[in-house]
Amino acid sequence: MKIALAQLNYHIGNFESNTNKIIAHIHEAKEKGADLVVFSELCVCGYPARDFLEFREFINLCEEAANKIAEECVGIACIIGLPTPNNNPEGKDLNNSAYFIEDGKVKAIVNKALLPNYDVFDEYRYFEPSTSFNCINFKGKRIALTICEDLWNTIENPLYITRPMDVLMKQNPDVMINIAASPFAYNHDEERIDILSDNASRYNLPLFYVNHVGAQTELIFDGGSLVFDNQGKLADEMPYFVERMAYYTLDDNAQISFDHTSTIKPGRESNIEQIHQGLILGIRDYFYKSGFKQAILGLSGGIDSAVVCALAAEALGAENVMAVLLPSKFSSDHSIKDAEDLVTNLGCMSQTVAIAKITDAVEEQLHPQFENLPFNIAEENIQSRSRAVVLMAMCNKFGYILLNTSNKSEAAVGYGTLYGDMCGGISVLGDVYKTQVFELARHINKDKEIIPINSIIKPPSAELRPGQKDSDSLPEYDILDKIIEEYVEHRCSSAEIVKLGYDAPTVQRVIRLINLAEHKRYQTPPILRVSPKAFGMGRRMPIVGKYLS
Amino acid sequence: MKIALAQLNYHIGNFESNTNKIIAHIHEAKEKGADLVVFSELCVCGYPARDFLEFREFINLCEEAANKIAEECVGIACIIGLPTPNNNPEGKDLNNSAYFIEDGKVKAIVNKALLPNYDVFDEYRYFEPSTSFNCINFKGKRIALTICEDLWNTIENPLYITRPMDVLMKQNPDVMINIAASPFAYNHDEERIDILSDNASRYNLPLFYVNHVGAQTELIFDGGSLVFDNQGKLADEMPYFVERMAYYTLDDNAQISFDHTSTIKPGRESNIEQIHQGLILGIRDYFYKSGFKQAILGLSGGIDSAVVCALAAEALGAENVMAVLLPSKFSSDHSIKDAEDLVTNLGCMSQTVAIAKITDAVEEQLHPQFENLPFNIAEENIQSRSRAVVLMAMCNKFGYILLNTSNKSEAAVGYGTLYGDMCGGISVLGDVYKTQVFELARHINKDKEIIPINSIIKPPSAELRPGQKDSDSLPEYDILDKIIEEYVEHRCSSAEIVKLGYDAPTVQRVIRLINLAEHKRYQTPPILRVSPKAFGMGRRMPIVGKYLS
Repeated sequence: MKIALAQLNYHIGNFESNTNKIIAHIHEAKEKGADLVVFSELCVCGYPARDFLEFREFINLCEEAANKIAEECVGIACIIGLPTPNNNPEGKDLNNSAYFIEDGKVKAIVNKALLPNYDVFDEYRYFEPSTSFNCINFKGKRIALTICEDLWNTIENPLYITRPMDVLMKQNPDVMINIAASPFAYNHDEERIDILSDNASRYNLPLFYVNHVGAQTELIFDGGSLVFDNQGKLADEMPYFVERMAYYTLDDNAQISFDHTSTIKPGRESNIEQIHQGLILGIRDYFYKSGFKQAILGLSGGIDSAVVCALAAEALGAENVMAVLLPSKFSSDHSIKDAEDLVTNLGCMSQTVAIAKITDAVEEQLHPQFENLPFNIAEENIQSRSRAVVLMAMCNKFGYILLNTSNKSEAAVGYGTLYGDMCGGISVLGDVYKTQVFELARHINKDKEIIPINSIIKPPSAELRPGQKDSDSLPEYDILDKIIEEYVEHRCSSAEIVKLGYDAPTVQRVIRLINLAEHKRYQTPPILRVSPKAFGMGRRMPIVGKYLS
Repeated sequence: MKIALAQLNYHIGNFESNTNKIIAHIHEAKEKGADLVVFSELCVCGYPARDFLEFREFINLCEEAANKIAEECVGIACIIGLPTPNNNPEGKDLNNSAYFIEDGKVKAIVNKALLPNYDVFDEYRYFEPSTSFNCINFKGKRIALTICEDLWNTIENPLYITRPMDVLMKQNPDVMINIAASPFAYNHDEERIDILSDNASRYNLPLFYVNHVGAQTELIFDGGSLVFDNQGKLADEMPYFVERMAYYTLDDNAQISFDHTSTIKPGRESNIEQIHQGLILGIRDYFYKSGFKQAILGLSGGIDSAVVCALAAEALGAENVMAVLLPSKFSSDHSIKDAEDLVTNLGCMSQTVAIAKITDAVEEQLHPQFENLPFNIAEENIQSRSRAVVLMAMCNKFGYILLNTSNKSEAAVGYGTLYGDMCGGISVLGDVYKTQVFELARHINKDKEIIPINSIIKPPSAELRPGQKDSDSLPEYDILDKIIEEYVEHRCSSAEIVKLGYDAPTVQRVIRLINLAEHKRYQTPPILRVSPKAFGMGRRMPIVGKYLS
């Protein structure tokens, strides 16, 4: 049996483009002699469609698209994923389904049983879990078809749902196929390989796994579809962050062969290399899928905006990036010079709009209210918000989308101004710690100096008052980032973090800052997710609550 | 048996205050001779605690608090709600539990089976549903104790979970007790009474139902705890939006009696009266529970900010409300006069900060970029954002919280400026349609003219360009609001809405505007929820997606 795995980039709700793409790949696979072509989970509508799934019209359009695909699927079989109505009027409205289509007809329907409902996932919001399972007979082989989480036996799955493979094994399957929409995090590729390999060896079956690729707002799907032999040995690994179709032959002895040069990665890429590729895809798809072409950002001369500018230029083309220098009276000469050097190195567009006259006007109008009160955070924020007014005016006038340049460390401790530097359509670095931003900058510079070295080595500063440095009010970033990781990603208490060897008052202060900033993070842009626990939809905290520290 | 129902306002994560409040009410109930005092769902930690529940320390603190409460519960029994670890290492980490405590000991533990996971609810994110059920024997009676959704038999509950009452009935209970955290929506009180009455009559058992009261950020819990006899007849209805403890005697013939004057509402309050009360509680608890006292808002002379100002003055005291007039060159004289009249009527603080010099400064600095381009939405938004810069500077200087004044109609169609008038700590009217805002204004004026009549009767305008009126770019609000309701609340397609008798191009334009504004709504403040479907946590749309219209 010749199996094609189609690792493709879908657009949520864009039935026309998704359907056309699926049909084109069915035709291509047929021409290449494949018996079966496998697409990823919920490919017909894109993933995650979220509350689109509550619209009856949306579900009808999924069915229409599936019918159109079935019509074109002649002389070959395919597996596609789509939401379907749950026929039982009790229970949830939908199933998360896979259609097995052969010669124009839906020959089998498989529904997902294990529905992830943690972190960024909300599948119990929409779907009824399946409780009955059957292998699919095709060309003399019995296929055990499952959907994504159905094979993630090790994760906190609910007790009351049967694991599909426990049932399917009783029907003596010859091969496992799993269709997935598994989002990127810098450590998730290894985890996926381990868990899927365990499945292949435990059940003594070859396994074909097709993942989604492409970004959907904050979630980046990294592809990396996988093929295992029945010992659990990795037979092939498709490339990451790109669309690809690959062909495999499964013989009667469960042996897998293929013509192409294997793309199994010889070693693990660094986290930073993966994050780099993920962010490029995240930026590109955000613009492409929302129908915008050009980005704008404020360039301070510091490392965060420099890295965002370089990534945007790579993702969108330097000619589509407008960097705006917005010096205030506290901006140092070297900052302006560093920003100008970056613009020269990248060849992007740039403008300079000084903000001193704007902040002066604000302060003058507020003089009766603020008279005799000392300069404080109010005046600092006036600068940051005046920059936002200028950048957003340029967005409104010229159709740019503003890129947010805050990093995860700042977002965590609230070191940023709401409606100021926390503005933007999408946050590029909001899931990248400051220490990782430094690594990313060096990574971007690996072949030549794109980001001025001075932006990398100078002490970080918001330059909102004379001589200000981040380290005046925050611990050093290597300490800060570790404390944030323990609290946010591992949900450790302050006592547990102190036990790891950190200074107790520092830990308590950092946790307090994180908690105090919940209301700010509530109103920030979607953040491109690259870690196992990003701020945003994967972390849902009460705003008004009494916090632990 | 004498049963006390304690309808109380808890603070999420504030174990000290919640525990003390529970203990004080146990003592009071004991003094009044009660055998049992019943508190609401998850009262120990507050509801919804969201991802606090993922912190081990938080769960430990819940257990500690429960132990403290148990120690004080001597000579009386009580029912409290708290999250508890799921002892089975597989499955979700927690149960949503009720402790039945008698004479200092936890005598029985009941876990919730039906876990809501729709709209604003995410209970499958945290909790393992219960699959075993037992009545509690107390003073010669068998109590069938369930938690909130466990009695909501009619709602799309999953098929694979047993309904607790189906099992409990086999044990011949004498009485049902249900502890709840059921949030307010203007039509939810009637629904609750109907469903609970159905339960009492179907099972032929008296029913005691205790609800949470108080606001937790966007969710307002309205209390209105209920008592039904075994025919399903409403025996008592506790007051809405206030804390209350009430006592009931259940005799051996399942008859219910009580000493106090029944607070059953003679008729249904209007939606607007309920919304009014809900918003007052929402504002008050937002400030009180986040430790702030004073609100600020921009007063335009229009109806939305006038209504918010009046509500804030009622909730917080006029002396704690700072109204800021922020006239631009397009502000009409009557707007300023209307705003001033409101300030006089309410007796709140006020300041005037003209923004023309600020907007002039922004436009002057952008002159090289904007030269020769016509005035458009960019300049309109500069005005709105300049006002936000001023208001936020006053927040930062004086410790006010900014109240957002956008209504649901504007929030729906994106008729507002991100980082401008869409700013704020909490949105007061974001779930109130413009047509309801008019009703609310008249309701507030029912005894005397608080909101200047001119603010109510003049044509709505954002006053961002000369002579601008809302109706220039939007359909009339009575039409607009209906279309929004059909699309957002009922998830109708444009074709379905047109069939209801609305003009097709208008319907399509409104739906398109709603879809285009998703990215704006993503970044807006939490919205006090008063309808069955509010923007915010209860409506989760993809940002980057191809929309249906």
